[in-house]
Amino acid sequence: MSHTRPAVVLLSGGLDSTTVLAIARRDGYEVNALSFSYGQRHDREIDAARRIASSYGVARHEAVTIDLRVFGGSALTSDIAVPKGRDVSDATDVPITYVPARNTIFLSYALAFAEVTHARDIFIGVNAVDYSGYPDCRPEYIHAFERMANLATRAGAEGNTITIRTPLIHLTKAQIIALGMSLGVDYSMTTSCYDPSATGEACGQCDACQLRLAGFSAAGATDPIAYARVGRA
Amino acid sequence: MSHTRPAVVLLSGGLDSTTVLAIARRDGYEVNALSFSYGQRHDREIDAARRIASSYGVARHEAVTIDLRVFGGSALTSDIAVPKGRDVSDATDVPITYVPARNTIFLSYALAFAEVTHARDIFIGVNAVDYSGYPDCRPEYIHAFERMANLATRAGAEGNTITIRTPLIHLTKAQIIALGMSLGVDYSMTTSCYDPSATGEACGQCDACQLRLAGFSAAGATDPIAYARVGRA
Repeated sequence: MSHTRPAVVLLSGGLDSTTVLAIARRDGYEVNALSFSYGQRHDREIDAARRIASSYGVARHEAVTIDLRVFGGSALTSDIAVPKGRDVSDATDVPITYVPARNTIFLSYALAFAEVTHARDIFIGVNAVDYSGYPDCRPEYIHAFERMANLATRAGAEGNTITIRTPLIHLTKAQIIALGMSLGVDYSMTTSCYDPSATGEACGQCDACQLRLAGFSAAGATDPIAYARVGRA
Repeated sequence: MSHTRPAVVLLSGGLDSTTVLAIARRDGYEVNALSFSYGQRHDREIDAARRIASSYGVARHEAVTIDLRVFGGSALTSDIAVPKGRDVSDATDVPITYVPARNTIFLSYALAFAEVTHARDIFIGVNAVDYSGYPDCRPEYIHAFERMANLATRAGAEGNTITIRTPLIHLTKAQIIALGMSLGVDYSMTTSCYDPSATGEACGQCDACQLRLAGFSAAGATDPIAYARVGRA
C-alpha cells in the first residue's frame, strides 16, 4: 500500500502542462488533474488532456467548463482573429491572446480541488521566459497567489500550507522539451496550436506553434505532431 | 452625459450584496453586477439578483454558471443536509456550509469582468463579524487577493490599481440592515435562506435565516420576507 502525497496538476493537454504532469509523477505525487473547457476551439485540448491523464495513471481527472460570459477582448474566447506570423522573438507587450484573469481563475478552481482532495501542492506550467508578456505568468504573481491561497482556505487557516509549484517558470521552451524527453514524455499526445485545422493539424503560424517549433529546433529534436504549414506567412 | 466610474459588484441577491449594490450606486459608480449560479438551490437567488440589478439600473448584469465538479464536502453544493437550529451566536469553527475557495473563485471572475469593463473597483459583501468562521471573509484574505489581483492583470501590469471594496466587513448584521434602510433598500427583494420551501418561503432555521432574523430584530425592524417557521427547532 503506497502513501503518496496528493497534488493538483493543471493539465491543458499542451506541451508545458504535460511536462509538468510528468515531473509531478516523477516526484511521487498522486495526481488529481484539472482541465478547463472554455470555447469550441479548445475541446480538442480536453480530449488530449484525457488521453494524457489516462496514460499517466492519474487518480482523478476533472474537466471544468468555464463560463465565458464575463470575458471579451481575447482572440482565444471571441471572434478576434488569432495573429499569424507574428515575430514572437521580441514580443514584450501583452499579447491579444491574453484571457483576462485566466490563470487566476484556473488557480482558484485548482485551490478548490486541492481542498477537497487534501492536496497541498498545486502544479502549473506557467513560464516567464517565452510568455513574458503575460502578467499572470510572472513569479511575483505566483507568490502573491500562493500567499492569498494560504489565507483563503480552511487548510491555510489551520496552518497547513498550500504551495504553488511552477517547475517550468525559468526554463526556455527548448529546456522544457529536453527535460520532458528525459522523462519519456510522448509529445505526440500534446496539442499547442491556437487555431488548428478541422482535421486537427496545427497551423504552424500562431504564436504557440512558432514557440513550440522553435523549442523543438533549439532542443535538436523533431516535433512529432502534424502541421498544416511551417514558418511565418 | 455622465462620466461615472465603472465598478464590478458581486450580487448574490441576498441582503448583504444588495446593500453593497446600494452603497456603490450612492457613491456614483456605474455598476456591472456579477452573479453566480452554482446549484439548483440557488436559481432563486439569480432571479432575485436580476430583479435587484434591474431596480438599481445597473449598466450590465451577468450570471455566470460555476461548474461544481471539482467541489464537494459542502452542504450548499452537495447532498449534505443544511444544519438547522444551530446556535450561531458562538460559532467559531469553519461551518460545513463553507464552499471550498468560493470567494476566491467569485473574485477571480470579478477580476476578469473588471478587466473587460475597465473597472478598477470590485465590491464584495463579505463580513468578518457574523461569518468569522469563513477564512475567506477576513480582511487579511481580502488584502492578499487585492495584492495578487494587481500583479495578475494587464491593468495591474500597467500601474493602474484594482481595489477590492468591502464596505460591510466590520459591520454587524443589524448595522448592515440599518445602513441599507437609510439608503432605501427594499429588503423584500432579497433572499438569504440556504433551504427555502418549494414556494420560496425562507426556512427560518438555517444559519443564514437565524443571522438575518436576529439582525432585523437588533435593528428594531421587521424582515419583510415570508418565513415558513421562525426560531430554533
